[in-house]
Amino acid sequence: MNVAFIGMGIMGKPMAINLRKAGHTVFVHGRRAETMAQPVEAGCTRCASAAEAAAQAEIIIVMVSDTPDVEQVLFGDNGVAAGARPGSVVIDMSTISPTATRMFAEKLQARGIEMLDAPVSGGDVGAINATLSIMVGGKPEVFDRVRPVFEAMGKNIVRVGDHGAGQVAKACHQIVVAVTSEGVAEALTVARKHGVAPAKVRDALMGGFAGSRILEVHGKRMLDNDYTPGFKTKLHQKDINIVMQTAKELGLALPGAALMMQHLNALMGTGDGELDSAAVMKIVERESGMER
Amino acid sequence: MNVAFIGMGIMGKPMAINLRKAGHTVFVHGRRAETMAQPVEAGCTRCASAAEAAAQAEIIIVMVSDTPDVEQVLFGDNGVAAGARPGSVVIDMSTISPTATRMFAEKLQARGIEMLDAPVSGGDVGAINATLSIMVGGKPEVFDRVRPVFEAMGKNIVRVGDHGAGQVAKACHQIVVAVTSEGVAEALTVARKHGVAPAKVRDALMGGFAGSRILEVHGKRMLDNDYTPGFKTKLHQKDINIVMQTAKELGLALPGAALMMQHLNALMGTGDGELDSAAVMKIVERESGMER
Repeated sequence: MNVAFIGMGIMGKPMAINLRKAGHTVFVHGRRAETMAQPVEAGCTRCASAAEAAAQAEIIIVMVSDTPDVEQVLFGDNGVAAGARPGSVVIDMSTISPTATRMFAEKLQARGIEMLDAPVSGGDVGAINATLSIMVGGKPEVFDRVRPVFEAMGKNIVRVGDHGAGQVAKACHQIVVAVTSEGVAEALTVARKHGVAPAKVRDALMGGFAGSRILEVHGKRMLDNDYTPGFKTKLHQKDINIVMQTAKELGLALPGAALMMQHLNALMGTGDGELDSAAVMKIVERESGMER
Repeated sequence: MNVAFIGMGIMGKPMAINLRKAGHTVFVHGRRAETMAQPVEAGCTRCASAAEAAAQAEIIIVMVSDTPDVEQVLFGDNGVAAGARPGSVVIDMSTISPTATRMFAEKLQARGIEMLDAPVSGGDVGAINATLSIMVGGKPEVFDRVRPVFEAMGKNIVRVGDHGAGQVAKACHQIVVAVTSEGVAEALTVARKHGVAPAKVRDALMGGFAGSRILEVHGKRMLDNDYTPGFKTKLHQKDINIVMQTAKELGLALPGAALMMQHLNALMGTGDGELDSAAVMKIVERESGMER
């Protein structure tokens, strides 16, 4: 298929290359020209604007940072909407607001353009290895049509519901990851404060009811005090901020997520935004004077 | 081996029976005489007191509710210490305070009696099927000596460290379970409030980075709004209370665990202490007027 790919960041670049590898014709656009070099080398076609890329494709993927970025890419000057043909499908794989997503889908629909929201989890490693989890919102028939494109980038691909449902699932994902990280961080800190080896406690807990991927992966980062990302604190802060904004819109109290918002804010305040978000451990340690 | 088993509750009864099945000679004592009927039928010997049971055994297992119960069973009238021979080993499998555990171990040591703390996870199902996870604190040589007894009751058996380390690991376990439950409860509530099927969101999250046993097992309970225990709220409250008391003793801030203490308190206040502790979902729902 002819696919446009807008957004050549740490995620977009390998995803575009994987589409090319799977045999699709890929038109790429990134704000900074140099980010397109590697995908072009892999056989993608360089485009000067989102509109130019969109004009040549039946499927237009957007992978940028936040709600305003997606709005700009879709409806700004030389944006996707200015180039895309009626009948084409926009797939927004960024993590943004579910309510904004529904609005964008409506605006595109008015121009005869279909939309799916399809945020991912799995980080840059998942993007490179084409093992992303993809959470999709939108019409089932549109989902079926673009499935081969998803399969070139991910493994666990689930259509969760209608427009926005993918973003809702991603919001849920980020809540669970953040709150579980806090539980693991507090538990390992309790162990250390008691003079019990946290690594032994993690071992004892791994097989049982307290076991999780977070205990495994983030738990290891916390034990090693090594927060090389992975998934950056500043992005997790952005995502939990979306959760908190949406919670306010809906009238929904989320005390666990709210606590994690504060911890992520605290990490930003200490200049730790570039660390993996497992660094919430540092906040738990700092609070009780247990910095390593 | 000759094993005494004190405490014929929902956990102790099947654990004693499994010891008997594994070929050990088991002397049982429960406060209420009728609780001994089933183990006696399975071949265990009924004893009128903890002291009487302890006097006939080289290994004395205690499985009761809380710190004061263990203290009573060990050092009260006709307690274990009154009957146990020097050289015998007390294994406390209750979930109690790590600091009290260290004190009990010292007091027993003064009488020439060894002690291990060995709290479990896996609930009554794990007790019946002999698949408990067992977290052990105490001397390695004592642990090695009693290993066959553990193997008759559990599967994932880890010596975490010295006296109290098993209780510390269990405290960590309960923190992770409680805090992760909150994350799952908030996530599924976000989905429902958005009109997205929570079951679909759980599916989308299960395979990936947000995946956990809690999402699987408690998530299912939350979806079904069915809080048949499992592990009761009132016991989880007791355990997180131990965590909070210990945190106060040590000067350790645990905001996630503290939040869960409040949610468990709230469940107790609404008469939900007998429900499975996955019922923290009810608090999240109630807070925003989303009761089912």
